[in-house]
Amino acid sequence: MPITVVGLDGDDTLWHNETRFNLTQAELRELLHRHVPDADVDRHLFETEMKNLGIYGYGIKSFTLSMIETAIQLTGGRIPASDLDVILGWGKRMLAMPTELLDGVEPALQGLSKRYDLLLITKGDLFDQESKLARSGLADLFLGVEIVSEKNASSYRGILARRGIKADEFVMVGNSLRSDVVPVLELGARAVHIPYQVTWHHEHVPEESLPEAGWFRLESIGELGPRLAGL
Amino acid sequence: MPITVVGLDGDDTLWHNETRFNLTQAELRELLHRHVPDADVDRHLFETEMKNLGIYGYGIKSFTLSMIETAIQLTGGRIPASDLDVILGWGKRMLAMPTELLDGVEPALQGLSKRYDLLLITKGDLFDQESKLARSGLADLFLGVEIVSEKNASSYRGILARRGIKADEFVMVGNSLRSDVVPVLELGARAVHIPYQVTWHHEHVPEESLPEAGWFRLESIGELGPRLAGL
Repeated sequence: MPITVVGLDGDDTLWHNETRFNLTQAELRELLHRHVPDADVDRHLFETEMKNLGIYGYGIKSFTLSMIETAIQLTGGRIPASDLDVILGWGKRMLAMPTELLDGVEPALQGLSKRYDLLLITKGDLFDQESKLARSGLADLFLGVEIVSEKNASSYRGILARRGIKADEFVMVGNSLRSDVVPVLELGARAVHIPYQVTWHHEHVPEESLPEAGWFRLESIGELGPRLAGL
Repeated sequence: MPITVVGLDGDDTLWHNETRFNLTQAELRELLHRHVPDADVDRHLFETEMKNLGIYGYGIKSFTLSMIETAIQLTGGRIPASDLDVILGWGKRMLAMPTELLDGVEPALQGLSKRYDLLLITKGDLFDQESKLARSGLADLFLGVEIVSEKNASSYRGILARRGIKADEFVMVGNSLRSDVVPVLELGARAVHIPYQVTWHHEHVPEESLPEAGWFRLESIGELGPRLAGL
């Protein structure tokens, strides 16, 4: 079956995301090292985020709450409230940042939108993702937008069913093997992996656990149109 | 046109919500009065929430972040981190609470689901709303679930268009004039207002600003089936 619908991930596929988390995390490290020079801030924050994932879900608000929790715990409650106020400010700054598109995204989507129905399929905080899309200038290129709390076979199945899309006419494009490739292959649809410069530890998947067929990897989104045309 | 699709709000229409925010807010008041006995905690928190709404959106995580900000500001940064940790804990407690249905919701929905397509249309935090629905035991009664970041004419229009529902066969049922009634009437659809025991100040609408036709008020959801049958 030829591809008729292209699903595109947002964060780190269309616009920069993880680098922003990393920059803020570096600031947190520096702030906390003033109080506890030897603390392993990265490890503690990651553990806090993982512990909270089932109750907070993904997104910047969750990240901010986990940063505050990490700061209180690592300093044994000795961190002054004014420093926690600084952390609150980092969260707001991240939420307010302009959406910064990756290189080549706009022309690539302009081209793709002429040949395929485009769906933005992104996970995380509903409010923040809608706001990022609105600021991206890309909204009109998408036939639909699906913001899900988790990308797994069940949520992809629901999207395809609701929209009457057959698995073999659908391809998902994204930077995460865990979220954009593995669950899509499970449904018998195809996937394209376009790695971002950094990957959140939580999204790592050992490559040898993936099926060999049904997906391929590109360097950049500019290669997508020609490759899909050749399928 | 006879009604074929019934939209139902979640928070304070199907399950208790605002009372939980109020209880936590009372705890915040008590905690902060230990530091600043004369502070107007309610007013400051509400102002902080309104100021943050455009950047955080609705939901418990936003509320938690605004409580922390209020606590830091009202105490001039003198609140100990251990007290802020208590506030973090309240947010988690709220997120983890079981979904407590309002009286009569389950039999009412069982009955309605036999005659109409039911849509849950709720606003707020995607992850939290999905989690509440999952814990409610009601998920199977709904044909679809729509979680939106804001309930306005445009978001309702999008839902009806996407699902191929005509405005005059749709009725929306909820506790908020602002979110469940006013925007729905704007589209030419009908609405039913079922007030909850308390209303968040942000959701208040002066009743005289509403159109007279197209909506009515019920005391409880148990009256909904018979009233819709008589339309």
